[in-house]
Amino acid sequence: MPAGELRYPSPARNLTMETHAAGDDEAWVWAQIKAEARRDAESEPALASYLYSTILSHSSLERSLAFHLGNKLCSSTLLSTLLYDLFLDTFSSDPALRAAAVADLRAARVRDPACVSFSHCLLNYKGFLACQAHRVAHKLWTQSRRPLALALQSRISDVFAVDIHPAAKIGKGILFDHATGVVIGETAVIGNNVSILHHVTLGGTGKASGDRHPKIGDGVLIGAGATILGNVKIGEGAKVGAGSVVLIDVPARATAVGNPARLVGGKEKTSSNEECPGESMDHTSFISEWSDYII
Amino acid sequence: MPAGELRYPSPARNLTMETHAAGDDEAWVWAQIKAEARRDAESEPALASYLYSTILSHSSLERSLAFHLGNKLCSSTLLSTLLYDLFLDTFSSDPALRAAAVADLRAARVRDPACVSFSHCLLNYKGFLACQAHRVAHKLWTQSRRPLALALQSRISDVFAVDIHPAAKIGKGILFDHATGVVIGETAVIGNNVSILHHVTLGGTGKASGDRHPKIGDGVLIGAGATILGNVKIGEGAKVGAGSVVLIDVPARATAVGNPARLVGGKEKTSSNEECPGESMDHTSFISEWSDYII
Amino acid sequence: MPAGELRYPSPARNLTMETHAAGDDEAWVWAQIKAEARRDAESEPALASYLYSTILSHSSLERSLAFHLGNKLCSSTLLSTLLYDLFLDTFSSDPALRAAAVADLRAARVRDPACVSFSHCLLNYKGFLACQAHRVAHKLWTQSRRPLALALQSRISDVFAVDIHPAAKIGKGILFDHATGVVIGETAVIGNNVSILHHVTLGGTGKASGDRHPKIGDGVLIGAGATILGNVKIGEGAKVGAGSVVLIDVPARATAVGNPARLVGGKEKTSSNEECPGESMDHTSFISEWSDYII
Amino acid sequence: MPAGELRYPSPARNLTMETHAAGDDEAWVWAQIKAEARRDAESEPALASYLYSTILSHSSLERSLAFHLGNKLCSSTLLSTLLYDLFLDTFSSDPALRAAAVADLRAARVRDPACVSFSHCLLNYKGFLACQAHRVAHKLWTQSRRPLALALQSRISDVFAVDIHPAAKIGKGILFDHATGVVIGETAVIGNNVSILHHVTLGGTGKASGDRHPKIGDGVLIGAGATILGNVKIGEGAKVGAGSVVLIDVPARATAVGNPARLVGGKEKTSSNEECPGESMDHTSFISEWSDYII
Amino acid sequence: MPAGELRYPSPARNLTMETHAAGDDEAWVWAQIKAEARRDAESEPALASYLYSTILSHSSLERSLAFHLGNKLCSSTLLSTLLYDLFLDTFSSDPALRAAAVADLRAARVRDPACVSFSHCLLNYKGFLACQAHRVAHKLWTQSRRPLALALQSRISDVFAVDIHPAAKIGKGILFDHATGVVIGETAVIGNNVSILHHVTLGGTGKASGDRHPKIGDGVLIGAGATILGNVKIGEGAKVGAGSVVLIDVPARATAVGNPARLVGGKEKTSSNEECPGESMDHTSFISEWSDYII
Amino acid sequence: MPAGELRYPSPARNLTMETHAAGDDEAWVWAQIKAEARRDAESEPALASYLYSTILSHSSLERSLAFHLGNKLCSSTLLSTLLYDLFLDTFSSDPALRAAAVADLRAARVRDPACVSFSHCLLNYKGFLACQAHRVAHKLWTQSRRPLALALQSRISDVFAVDIHPAAKIGKGILFDHATGVVIGETAVIGNNVSILHHVTLGGTGKASGDRHPKIGDGVLIGAGATILGNVKIGEGAKVGAGSVVLIDVPARATAVGNPARLVGGKEKTSSNEECPGESMDHTSFISEWSDYII
Repeated sequence: MPAGELRYPSPARNLTMETHAAGDDEAWVWAQIKAEARRDAESEPALASYLYSTILSHSSLERSLAFHLGNKLCSSTLLSTLLYDLFLDTFSSDPALRAAAVADLRAARVRDPACVSFSHCLLNYKGFLACQAHRVAHKLWTQSRRPLALALQSRISDVFAVDIHPAAKIGKGILFDHATGVVIGETAVIGNNVSILHHVTLGGTGKASGDRHPKIGDGVLIGAGATILGNVKIGEGAKVGAGSVVLIDVPARATAVGNPARLVGGKEKTSSNEECPGESMDHTSFISEWSDYII
Repeated sequence: MPAGELRYPSPARNLTMETHAAGDDEAWVWAQIKAEARRDAESEPALASYLYSTILSHSSLERSLAFHLGNKLCSSTLLSTLLYDLFLDTFSSDPALRAAAVADLRAARVRDPACVSFSHCLLNYKGFLACQAHRVAHKLWTQSRRPLALALQSRISDVFAVDIHPAAKIGKGILFDHATGVVIGETAVIGNNVSILHHVTLGGTGKASGDRHPKIGDGVLIGAGATILGNVKIGEGAKVGAGSVVLIDVPARATAVGNPARLVGGKEKTSSNEECPGESMDHTSFISEWSDYII
Repeated sequence: MPAGELRYPSPARNLTMETHAAGDDEAWVWAQIKAEARRDAESEPALASYLYSTILSHSSLERSLAFHLGNKLCSSTLLSTLLYDLFLDTFSSDPALRAAAVADLRAARVRDPACVSFSHCLLNYKGFLACQAHRVAHKLWTQSRRPLALALQSRISDVFAVDIHPAAKIGKGILFDHATGVVIGETAVIGNNVSILHHVTLGGTGKASGDRHPKIGDGVLIGAGATILGNVKIGEGAKVGAGSVVLIDVPARATAVGNPARLVGGKEKTSSNEECPGESMDHTSFISEWSDYII
Repeated sequence: MPAGELRYPSPARNLTMETHAAGDDEAWVWAQIKAEARRDAESEPALASYLYSTILSHSSLERSLAFHLGNKLCSSTLLSTLLYDLFLDTFSSDPALRAAAVADLRAARVRDPACVSFSHCLLNYKGFLACQAHRVAHKLWTQSRRPLALALQSRISDVFAVDIHPAAKIGKGILFDHATGVVIGETAVIGNNVSILHHVTLGGTGKASGDRHPKIGDGVLIGAGATILGNVKIGEGAKVGAGSVVLIDVPARATAVGNPARLVGGKEKTSSNEECPGESMDHTSFISEWSDYII
Repeated sequence: MPAGELRYPSPARNLTMETHAAGDDEAWVWAQIKAEARRDAESEPALASYLYSTILSHSSLERSLAFHLGNKLCSSTLLSTLLYDLFLDTFSSDPALRAAAVADLRAARVRDPACVSFSHCLLNYKGFLACQAHRVAHKLWTQSRRPLALALQSRISDVFAVDIHPAAKIGKGILFDHATGVVIGETAVIGNNVSILHHVTLGGTGKASGDRHPKIGDGVLIGAGATILGNVKIGEGAKVGAGSVVLIDVPARATAVGNPARLVGGKEKTSSNEECPGESMDHTSFISEWSDYII
Repeated sequence: MPAGELRYPSPARNLTMETHAAGDDEAWVWAQIKAEARRDAESEPALASYLYSTILSHSSLERSLAFHLGNKLCSSTLLSTLLYDLFLDTFSSDPALRAAAVADLRAARVRDPACVSFSHCLLNYKGFLACQAHRVAHKLWTQSRRPLALALQSRISDVFAVDIHPAAKIGKGILFDHATGVVIGETAVIGNNVSILHHVTLGGTGKASGDRHPKIGDGVLIGAGATILGNVKIGEGAKVGAGSVVLIDVPARATAVGNPARLVGGKEKTSSNEECPGESMDHTSFISEWSDYII
């Protein structure tokens, strides 16, 4: 399958995050994106204008991203030029935001079999775009520019149907797959290398106005439609099954499934589980366990 | 936390609906909104244009809302001027619609810890905006202007991902929190002071074309992702847990959880429960009960 | 109820798919649509411009559809004229796409009690529009025009919150009811006369990059919020309950409910079930069975 | 010629302003416009949407005009809804503006052989539209809302290439024919029933900041490209030839031609000239006189 | 000068119209345009998107032109898709319109020293674009689709400041240089290979509603700001000086200058003048003659 | 007259260009503009959003100008973000462009009695805006980015009806008053402190492709509708009367009037004329001389 081939450009080592500097990494990914866009523009004239305006006319990833987000998120009362300016200033001045974007691009490329290229993710993944825009909103929030941060949140929710409170803290290497309907509350925290499917809620319990949303550890995988409520802790490398309703802490490397969610799998198994589900995207390895558990 | 501070402007009594006339109430809320917008415009020049066009240039809440909805819901084939005209005419001629909007603004402000100001809700809450636009669509429906009502429904669903049939009857003091993915069918009825989280479905059973959707009592709280199907009755002050699938009546002040949903909590407890969950937004007080029940 | 009256134009036989040629069928439906639009334009001047631009100014269903989709899915970087051209060329050159669109219009009209007219579906149903646009994306995919197909997928997901991979194979006579949040993966296959409610996921398991998504048989009905994961087979005429999480094959005419989903109903009952749930839209006939099963 | 036929609807008396009340007159013209638009919409489906949105969906001439001007003059920073509101408020509150618009429509219809209908003028004549928008700008100017008046002037100049200072006083029954390039300065005054062709300048002399622009009497006709500079007086019923440069007073009923302009025709002739050239639009009756004069 | 180099691509013979078929000619010019656009897109990334959308993504000159005109002339009430459709249908069905466009492109390329390429004319010359749009309006006029023709005229006048009545007959090989302010009346006729500068008026005299506008012979050159009024005849190969006001017939190959215009140059000179001024664009060869004449 | 008052802010010395550094001057003018905009925003809520988006939200004149030009000149195929980027980069990197803009603002403020404030000129004067955009196009031209320069020229001509070839050299302190219809050719050169009214042509003679357009000296005043053709020299401080057709050199401080233009005024008078007509804007002081001359 060509799509498969495309997923592993040589040298393959570049697909995983390595020891070279972040700047080099950004440059390498940007070069890949331009090469992909050039190839696509040549093979598909109807898309060439789009690819030139969004990617090929830009001198850097941050400019391309600022342009694309500005045009996607603008409205008749929030002009694209204003948003472009805001995004470009923020990405230009903060290398960490750029490094996170690169890590997210790699995450999509490695974990999502349907992600045929970096440029596909950059242009088409609403989860990727919502996450990058959220990072800008979060930065504004920490700078006490809250009304602007909230206006951005609103535009992201309108345009991508992804509603992330600007105060929420999100790590890097994040894959929001499909992303429609994701809701993440004000005091939620998400670690690195986490994968979250669509319709996932990290919600509050409504009881209090303080710290009231979930804390998601590194490498966690949260299946489609899962609802995690309250200030609970989902430990490193844990998995939450699709459609689960989680109101309790989930230990590291454990799996929670069902409504209400219970933990499945024994302690020994958990400890021997060395993989990172947020990266392997194995949604269903718990099926047999679950079946066992249930029956 | 400043957000918390902002939530309780003095005099606090104004945050709950009191004995003064609806017109006074509307005027008070509108004055608050203007003051908030002025403060934000001063502190954030990048947002000032947006705040002036949406709020500060208008002489009344109804004009601001008509302008904002017209610009949000317009498309290349349904122009903003046409929609603005329609919204303004309807809001101007029906004080009940304006009173309901004010009650909804208060509901968001009181119940949602993330709602830092009235203007934040007015500008940014897709649930609030979808609900106000629905009320206009509903009025058109009752005037037998059905094609226009259905066109509005479609625009609301495209823009906000909130799909409410124009025939559905919705009370006031409603909070659609996050709102993405809410679906409410033709013969659904929703009482006053109800809180509904995102991804909630009040759906039909497909069996018939008559009265086939849920009836939601006053003060009900419906958690994220809950699906309530058929002409069932959710009694006053009842709670429906997140992710529940409800196919049965739920008595007043009872709690339904699970898939399929069962009632949790004993009768005596229910009767002693004097609070209104739609207002307290307590999503998870049933956890201990549920755990008890399940185990 | 007038809506009910409108649903059954005479001669009623035309509402079900019959033996006359596809072209005749298309012409008949198009004539109905024009008549409906003319009636609505006369009764509602505020909507007349919209109805003329989307329907009444066009000489054929394919032109109307290409115009409407072009204007709905365009963005500042993907112009309406480009998309119009693409849609018109594809619909004009492929009668099968037009026949599928007509079958989908009939499906909405017959199965959805809220669908008061063909034109209502054509103009307002995001599920219908997303499906027609997907068919074009799918055709592009099979012609190895993948970047363009993926760009279309992205626009459909942004605008309608419906995310269907362009490689997914979808039959005809499909009703995506409400449609917000539907996600369908790359190797999914959907038969004919299937009804799928909103928030339904036909997802992968993440284990592999090969054939990893569900196969949905003819006449299947999938309730709101159901999540079906992995290369499982949902047999002809099966039903999947709302909110179910299905990780297993479901035999023909069987019903799967719950999280995780189990089959309900005995073998004899299944065999005697002659109706097609995808067409009857009976979401809840399994309630009694389920209750029995659970208790 | 059918166009000619259309120009004289029976009863012909209505084409000239008569003794019935202004309100009746406005109603009669509006009824004509709607009838014309309906006829055109029926005969030309491609234009029907345009005609419905601009004329047929509106309940009055002022609404149609406010809508049309709002959509023509808006920009990304001056929204159509804002302009629509401004125009509608002004036209609604000032019957004199509406009467002037009606008089201008009649002027175009009677004097311009190419004006086949009132609706043609209302929709397509940039001179008519620029003049109506100017009247609103002028009203704002007299209300000391100068920045807004000047912003309107700028939009009219960008969109229609007609640059009229908002302080300029313009009578009624005015025909700006073709209109491109017309420039009218701050202290200019134009009487009633004046016809002004394109590229006409009523300019200042640059010497002073006081009263420095031409005063144009009733019934004057100014030919294409004429330039009239300084605080000179063009008397009632006078004619200014195309391309003339006028730096001197022109007596009533006299004709000025040439660069620099001289008066042609004797006194007795002038006095016997009972017609109003601004209404007869006779641009060239002076040719023989001129030739006599020159040779 | 590079511009000069660019003007004469080899083989130079192709710059003048020759004996090969019109279709071949169109193909050759279109190939040139694509080559120019490709070269420019490579050298200027900021323009590449524009060049792909307007030229390089299209399979023919008529598609490129229809796309470009549709996007230029559209408004919020006359959508680009509608105009694109109209232009494409008309250009596709009438080879004469395409041949005229090709002849106009050649005219600009040969006669205007500032015209560095065919693509420059196609994309940037408002005179060229206004003329092609007029040809479509004229065709509609002859098909009795007058309201649509007049709406097009109005859009052309708004967007390009070129006002040509749709009934006016215009030949081919026409250069409207700069074009701003050109006004051409209803019964005007323009021959082939005519060059008309900006601010030129071919106007009526206002006396009558019949045949009242100028008739311009083949190869005529009309200088900037010239005003020609009434049903006068400008003979083949005649010249009209800049700023002239012409109210009389001008014999073939004669030159008219001044306000009012007189003929300059003797008969013998005229007869020996073998060149075509409309093609040579010699605006000022009459200066010495004129000086002689005047002094 | 209040307008007059506004024209002379204290300290008045700042209105003429003095010895302080260009950067200081820019800062002073920008501070004035912001103060004016703030005052207008306060007095006119309907304009506040416009003033914030165009002026008050920006941190410098160059950002405000880049934003305003980007939004004015953009089209569906040349996006505002792209143009904004281009303008901002060019203005930021070239202090001479910013100094020229400031000099132009001062020119309008001092010479045009209708120019009530700097912000009025910045926002509303198409001549000012066209000139600044031309300067960017000219810079691109000198950098051999010709296709982009020509695309800008075309947009300026479409939007402002001002057509300046990007190769034309223009000094600073320029006032294009009203500006509609100005045409300036490829090899034209304009000095400093020149005032040019609307409809002025600096055109070629068509004879050659080399240096073929007028050279305008410092301090020249060119009246409305004047046409200057060929490589002629208009000397320092000369005046060209409105509507003149100039085909000859005009000596320094001389006045040319008429069609064809002749010089008026004797040598001694010329030498004693110490003022700069381009700055005094005295269009008509030649009237008496002219009358004398002619009669």
